[in-house]
Amino acid sequence: MAFDLDQLKWDDKGLVSVVFQDYRTGEVLTLAYMSREALEKTLETGKVYVFRRSRGRVMMKGETSGNVQNVKEVLVDCDADALVMKIEQVGGAACHEGYPSCFYRRLENGDLVVFEERVFDPKEVYGK
Amino acid sequence: MAFDLDQLKWDDKGLVSVVFQDYRTGEVLTLAYMSREALEKTLETGKVYVFRRSRGRVMMKGETSGNVQNVKEVLVDCDADALVMKIEQVGGAACHEGYPSCFYRRLENGDLVVFEERVFDPKEVYGK
Repeated sequence: MAFDLDQLKWDDKGLVSVVFQDYRTGEVLTLAYMSREALEKTLETGKVYVFRRSRGRVMMKGETSGNVQNVKEVLVDCDADALVMKIEQVGGAACHEGYPSCFYRRLENGDLVVFEERVFDPKEVYGK
Repeated sequence: MAFDLDQLKWDDKGLVSVVFQDYRTGEVLTLAYMSREALEKTLETGKVYVFRRSRGRVMMKGETSGNVQNVKEVLVDCDADALVMKIEQVGGAACHEGYPSCFYRRLENGDLVVFEERVFDPKEVYGK
């Protein structure tokens, strides 16, 4: 079936959820939101663009830090309101906190424990 | 750091997003939403409970189909508004459409292509 963006169920803010996953390791890196403009740019360029809720605009992922993401595969869910993008992470850090994944903490016996190593220092990359 | 549910950023509907991932293969199975009640029940029982937006209530995942999910690991993201749960999928199907994953379609040269095999027929399991 030919795909077009009207088949997706955009939410009341005009966004769909996207799970970003390392195409080699399968690690889940980030959950983010794409506007129609962000998804169009992503599919056209093969680089991830996201709608940053905190900034209210579309940005290329890694625009500031250099940690861009190249899209390898796009999956669509049953409800057509969520995507999985399997990506190649340039620079090794998907998270603005400098970690490989945004999911760098896990629950261990009631504690929240950081289990990943930082790839960069966010203060150096983004300023204070 | 000791974890409690007040550290999570619940959205304006009182939900957090949860990415469910097969703990063995790393396949992303579902993106769903948990209320505080659903997350509490999940952490207490080790079985996944989700808030179903379509029904407006908390249900054990697999309550009708038998395809329950046992929680193996819980990750928390940088913004504390999204979780990854690595789970063991009983019955082999996470999707109410009868597929192993809700992400059973992918984009291939502008087409949306089903690439997974159905594990069960939803008409038989849920009725028409």
